[in-house]
Amino acid sequence: MSNKLNITHPTLLLDVEKCRGNIDRLSTKMAREDVIFRPHFKTHQSREIGRWFRDYQIDKITVSSLRMALYFADDGWKDITVAFPVNLLEINIINDLAGRINLNLIAEDADVLVQLDHVLHHRVGIFLKMDTGTHRTGIDPADIATTDACVKAMAKSANLVWKGFLSHAGQTYLVRHDVEDMGVVYKNSLQGIIALKEHYHSQYPDIRISFGDTPGASIMDDFSHIDEMRPGNFVFYDMMQVQIGSCSIDEVAVAMICPVVASHPQRQECVIYGGGIHFSKDSILRDDSKATYGTVVPYSDGRWDSSQEQGYVRSLSQEHGVIKLLPDLIESIKPGQLVAVLPVHSCMTAQCIGSYLDHDGRRIDHFASTKYFLQ
Amino acid sequence: MSNKLNITHPTLLLDVEKCRGNIDRLSTKMAREDVIFRPHFKTHQSREIGRWFRDYQIDKITVSSLRMALYFADDGWKDITVAFPVNLLEINIINDLAGRINLNLIAEDADVLVQLDHVLHHRVGIFLKMDTGTHRTGIDPADIATTDACVKAMAKSANLVWKGFLSHAGQTYLVRHDVEDMGVVYKNSLQGIIALKEHYHSQYPDIRISFGDTPGASIMDDFSHIDEMRPGNFVFYDMMQVQIGSCSIDEVAVAMICPVVASHPQRQECVIYGGGIHFSKDSILRDDSKATYGTVVPYSDGRWDSSQEQGYVRSLSQEHGVIKLLPDLIESIKPGQLVAVLPVHSCMTAQCIGSYLDHDGRRIDHFASTKYFLQ
Repeated sequence: MSNKLNITHPTLLLDVEKCRGNIDRLSTKMAREDVIFRPHFKTHQSREIGRWFRDYQIDKITVSSLRMALYFADDGWKDITVAFPVNLLEINIINDLAGRINLNLIAEDADVLVQLDHVLHHRVGIFLKMDTGTHRTGIDPADIATTDACVKAMAKSANLVWKGFLSHAGQTYLVRHDVEDMGVVYKNSLQGIIALKEHYHSQYPDIRISFGDTPGASIMDDFSHIDEMRPGNFVFYDMMQVQIGSCSIDEVAVAMICPVVASHPQRQECVIYGGGIHFSKDSILRDDSKATYGTVVPYSDGRWDSSQEQGYVRSLSQEHGVIKLLPDLIESIKPGQLVAVLPVHSCMTAQCIGSYLDHDGRRIDHFASTKYFLQ
Repeated sequence: MSNKLNITHPTLLLDVEKCRGNIDRLSTKMAREDVIFRPHFKTHQSREIGRWFRDYQIDKITVSSLRMALYFADDGWKDITVAFPVNLLEINIINDLAGRINLNLIAEDADVLVQLDHVLHHRVGIFLKMDTGTHRTGIDPADIATTDACVKAMAKSANLVWKGFLSHAGQTYLVRHDVEDMGVVYKNSLQGIIALKEHYHSQYPDIRISFGDTPGASIMDDFSHIDEMRPGNFVFYDMMQVQIGSCSIDEVAVAMICPVVASHPQRQECVIYGGGIHFSKDSILRDDSKATYGTVVPYSDGRWDSSQEQGYVRSLSQEHGVIKLLPDLIESIKPGQLVAVLPVHSCMTAQCIGSYLDHDGRRIDHFASTKYFLQ
């Protein structure tokens, strides 16, 4: 086995060409559909990868925390939406950012908006977070009283500028390879917000609907009624997205390269150095209803080969991964070799590892290993 | 709400007194039982916390990776067992460490031992990893042929010194508050290894049985036949250990302090800034069969109060945690406040966050945010 990159421990390898292809494909599609494309940078969390988006005329981004916003603002991004309910305790970061970039925050509570207004020194955009069925956060679109209270709180404020409605259609993750099903999810998720936008239209003609998620952005063809899309995962994709049908396995742009450390022929299993601290513990169910934490493919000479599935990760503990191999492979995969694992959830995996290696052996930054995240 | 420590985002707070109490209790017990105590440092992964163990006469430690061994060797630890199948690709670290400390590795494959011997420049201790029923790694104790092949490979080597058998009794994590059940697990797990030790005794009178885990070390009173114990989690404990019966909730020594960012009275839920990237995604089942990712208790003035359960974390996404509150609490827990969450799995949570804050506002180091882990 050639080990061109001298990998000795779990290392997240990035295929730059696949990644740029993913960015190109979706930015072209969003431009064609005349939708504002505000990609979510919580997946890659990298300044260098962020800069690649500029080649595709992207100048608006989404992040998932105020400190992540700071990380990207300090690299020159001037228009950032923090798609997470506003955290009043981080008012110092809010005021710092609001003084130098176009900062959008999300809120769902009139009291929070009033409190925010009291401590804010600059103008910020506000999207109202709407719950379109996932019941994690957000206002029920049928709850006009709460929406009205929020709109009134903003109307009284000089610094809170209402930008529109924002929602995350988490239910798209339940769809499997079906454009029609995806369309139904979109229709059901959007109808309440569309009605609200019309309700407020005469008084607020400029408010927008910000929507979006990787499955919908990848699979759907009709984005009418949607002003802005915020997918993130598409930059790398992962095995969850392959299962949903958002991408092919060949479009997955990251793989964890892991040393094999033990072999158990009687169980057709091998053990890798690569566990929950490297992958996170997100899993999906395979067709045979068994949980998997990643798909194993061959690695050689600085590249993985996604055309040959060798097995899957059946369990993860802190540092160990147990791989169930396809029959007949146990004799060819031995301790001291490396395998590639296509992760189930690339956002979490990148967060765990905190950097990328490209095919040329160059390190690419990740927010999680900077002072912006570490305390 | 007083915010003495100025916490504004998810922060892992360490109660030093509880932590030292946990170290004191278990080191006293192991000394009384005449068992070598080689605590597993993969839970805290901190040089500073490691140094506290020296106050309790601990000079032998366990770690879960070679790079973690390097981290602690560079802080003065001279006797380290890496309780993970030897990774041949990290031979440079092995040779570096083996030249300056007592390094023990674990193996389960004669071929690996032969390969290791070829590239090793110094003596290392070898424990044979035995599978006592978890089927993750290790040799089946009934498989004398494999054990013999390993013993012969070591006998032929000048640098591989056989130290004995090592096992992790993962089944103890299935026990619930029952000393007798724990005794049965120990008896069943140990009997095969005890027979092997006797089998080799005449030729290798000094080989040892290294065993251990936090539930067993905490609950058991009989450690006959065990030469060495390697628990790790006890240094902090967590809600999984409370459920097993290894500790009381008052002995859990870490809590994640999280800002509340949204409130949903109709569902008796609030949303915290604190998700899978902070806690990891390990969960346990509550008595009502619902999954929980942590137990919520009040936080005030730099301290949490484990006597008052306020609710539990019912779901985690990348940055969000959704808390199901006990009835009547929804009006008192508002956005802008902080709550404390006792984690389900403290090892993984500490790894995610990469540092600790103590009650005096001092930062305590963690391997995960050093160059030893980051690439």
